[in-house]
Amino acid sequence: MRYQLAIIGGGPAGYTAAEAAGHAGLSVVIFEKHSLGGVCLNEGCIPTKTLLYSAKTLDSARHAQKYAVKVEGTPEADLPKIVARKQKVVRKLVLGVKAKLTAAGVTMVTGEAFVLDKNHVQCGEAVYECDNLLLCTGSETFIPAIPGVDNVPYWTHRDALDSKELPASLAIIGGGVIGMEFASFFNSLGVEVTVVEMLDEILGGMDKELSALLRAEYAKRGVKFLLKTKVTSLAQSEAGIQVNYDTAEGTGNVVAERLLMSVGRRPVLKGFGLENLPLEKNERGNPQVDAHMQTSLPGVYVCGDLTGFSLLAHTAVREAEVAVHHILGKEDSMSYRAIPGVVYTNPEIAGVGATEESLQKQGIAYRVKQLPMAFSGRFVAENEGVNGVCKLLLAEDDTILGAHLLGNPASEIITLAGMAIELKLTTEQWKRIVFPHPTVGEIFREL
Amino acid sequence: MRYQLAIIGGGPAGYTAAEAAGHAGLSVVIFEKHSLGGVCLNEGCIPTKTLLYSAKTLDSARHAQKYAVKVEGTPEADLPKIVARKQKVVRKLVLGVKAKLTAAGVTMVTGEAFVLDKNHVQCGEAVYECDNLLLCTGSETFIPAIPGVDNVPYWTHRDALDSKELPASLAIIGGGVIGMEFASFFNSLGVEVTVVEMLDEILGGMDKELSALLRAEYAKRGVKFLLKTKVTSLAQSEAGIQVNYDTAEGTGNVVAERLLMSVGRRPVLKGFGLENLPLEKNERGNPQVDAHMQTSLPGVYVCGDLTGFSLLAHTAVREAEVAVHHILGKEDSMSYRAIPGVVYTNPEIAGVGATEESLQKQGIAYRVKQLPMAFSGRFVAENEGVNGVCKLLLAEDDTILGAHLLGNPASEIITLAGMAIELKLTTEQWKRIVFPHPTVGEIFREL
Repeated sequence: MRYQLAIIGGGPAGYTAAEAAGHAGLSVVIFEKHSLGGVCLNEGCIPTKTLLYSAKTLDSARHAQKYAVKVEGTPEADLPKIVARKQKVVRKLVLGVKAKLTAAGVTMVTGEAFVLDKNHVQCGEAVYECDNLLLCTGSETFIPAIPGVDNVPYWTHRDALDSKELPASLAIIGGGVIGMEFASFFNSLGVEVTVVEMLDEILGGMDKELSALLRAEYAKRGVKFLLKTKVTSLAQSEAGIQVNYDTAEGTGNVVAERLLMSVGRRPVLKGFGLENLPLEKNERGNPQVDAHMQTSLPGVYVCGDLTGFSLLAHTAVREAEVAVHHILGKEDSMSYRAIPGVVYTNPEIAGVGATEESLQKQGIAYRVKQLPMAFSGRFVAENEGVNGVCKLLLAEDDTILGAHLLGNPASEIITLAGMAIELKLTTEQWKRIVFPHPTVGEIFREL
Repeated sequence: MRYQLAIIGGGPAGYTAAEAAGHAGLSVVIFEKHSLGGVCLNEGCIPTKTLLYSAKTLDSARHAQKYAVKVEGTPEADLPKIVARKQKVVRKLVLGVKAKLTAAGVTMVTGEAFVLDKNHVQCGEAVYECDNLLLCTGSETFIPAIPGVDNVPYWTHRDALDSKELPASLAIIGGGVIGMEFASFFNSLGVEVTVVEMLDEILGGMDKELSALLRAEYAKRGVKFLLKTKVTSLAQSEAGIQVNYDTAEGTGNVVAERLLMSVGRRPVLKGFGLENLPLEKNERGNPQVDAHMQTSLPGVYVCGDLTGFSLLAHTAVREAEVAVHHILGKEDSMSYRAIPGVVYTNPEIAGVGATEESLQKQGIAYRVKQLPMAFSGRFVAENEGVNGVCKLLLAEDDTILGAHLLGNPASEIITLAGMAIELKLTTEQWKRIVFPHPTVGEIFREL
């Protein structure tokens, strides 16, 4: 069996590349050991958003009176049903991916693929020949070697998504995106949540000021935050799981019924024969790629989390398109100038382009334009008693370097700023676009 | 008193121009006879969105079980409180406009202004001298001369916004944007709604296919639609207000407790001395303007609904910016290529650029790309049992001519297509933008 393209990994990078290449007329085989859609669709982006939307519905029903809607009693979430709905949504979307790949004429193989050399992949007994090879094996949860970690039961995001029993309390180690989305979900459902973060602010990589505002909002709702706090050991006590920590002020501990580990994710580099390819590595030890996502070995491409760059599904999707374009001889190259980052808390926080922190580090001059979200009439109409912030970072030539938003629906409107940044628009040029009124997106025009 | 710019009308065109001109250092006076913000802020865009958000909250609480959230009893809306909240939101935003104009050093005059000539405006006893004159008097509800119209009580949108009692039934004459937004609101609140529309589809000007899908959705929820139906007379009967009509199948009538007239709006051409300016008129009888919003009389500008072009707040805002730029000698001109239209029903419907109907009429070749919204994972996660459609109209050179969306949050993401259309991007160029995952906006990339 000989294919023009063999893809290892059926996540966003893999299925995007497979579909695009298939439609372009290439013969394509894709290997996935678990379920098409990868972490993103099966146990990441999509399932979390399903859970978070239930939490949002619960929040909305609880606060309905703010909008003059009377709801009797106290609305309650039904966790087993929430989890069941999540499974249903995931199934539907996995079937959707399969249908798209079928329509694109892609051969799908379920099983662990193993690279023999750049033109041969083995899966089970069969050996597949390929002209081009795309590696997108994704990433996995990183569990730090904290003393005692092997002696306590802990959740990864996967367990947290499937738990049908609500703990009374939850300790979360790591206040990044995953940690904060679960903090938001379980807080809405009435769980006592403590977030333990080693750095001085949650959501490292996002705008620090907005992250602090979001943290303050969740603190008001009862989430406890321990910043600049290093976990020193874990132990099981009668009262629950004990997280012992160190801070500048001394040691302490938090005890919770459940523990979620969300310290971070790491590229999957082992188990699929990567060592059989003589690839140059970058300083992080991941395969080095050029602007076309090609490695040092012509015909071998790496996309998605495996590159170690941004570990985001939408980066992977775009990288996959670039790789396929290169195989097809179509002019394209990867740009990381405007990769949005979104946290689906309620309110959402989103950013794209540079942060103040990154610009300061690079010594790039910038101006800040900032407005409360209340400058958008629609925001006021739909967000009773809630505020937010919109921040633009401008270069000296008035092009947009970065945009950061706290407030719903930040996730959807951040792309407007992403377009402006990627297309290198000045604020004047951007302002000539007519934004419908009233929308929250108009806040960019106001700035 | 001499000003560099006098503005008649404090709606979106007027306050935008006043703020921009004031910040640019011009001396500016603005006349408003009612309340700053105009129809849009006081009795249009913003108040309707406030009401509709309460209705959406009610819908969400009612259907919470779809997302595994238990709500006891039947959630109910409290109309007097909804109206009170609306007032509060409007007050807050009117104060916001005042604060912005104050910050820009604009003189605000409350009263009816009257143009004496292009350099003199009278208000009360005072006469104001001006170098430039901007007319943006807006539009008013058009009440057609239907026999009997003077003998029945009817609502305009203004009464519908302020009614604190819910009628059992409501007949709406005119299924345009205003008619459909109120149909949506009162349907959510349990009122028996009948929409009478003269044309063969609701929401004239929007994509016809999507409008029909929206109509089918509301029909399912109990709204009755009478299309191609001409109202012939109105009468008060014991059972309520009787709307007599003619269709191809014969005559008929609908009786309702209340009647809402939403046939359309017309520019306000009288009462402010327009006749004292020797302006060229366009074929519709409105003042003719050039690409800088200047009339045939140098120094006299017309913006907003008074032009009779699009009767949308966001068009007015952009026109006002263009006019001020012209006064300031700054290069700019008005483009109507990408004016979005949005209807805030639930689901929302939005469009920007050309429709299939408009392209066919002009004989322009185009290709349609269309997908169900279920191709967006986030849409599936957040819209249980609901679907939608996204449609792109492409030119032969692959640039985007039009985009049409049915499904939340269409209003916020349509601007992404608006940017692509205004900037004349091809689909290839647009696809190079990284859209965050998972978002509903990604649907454009899928296409």
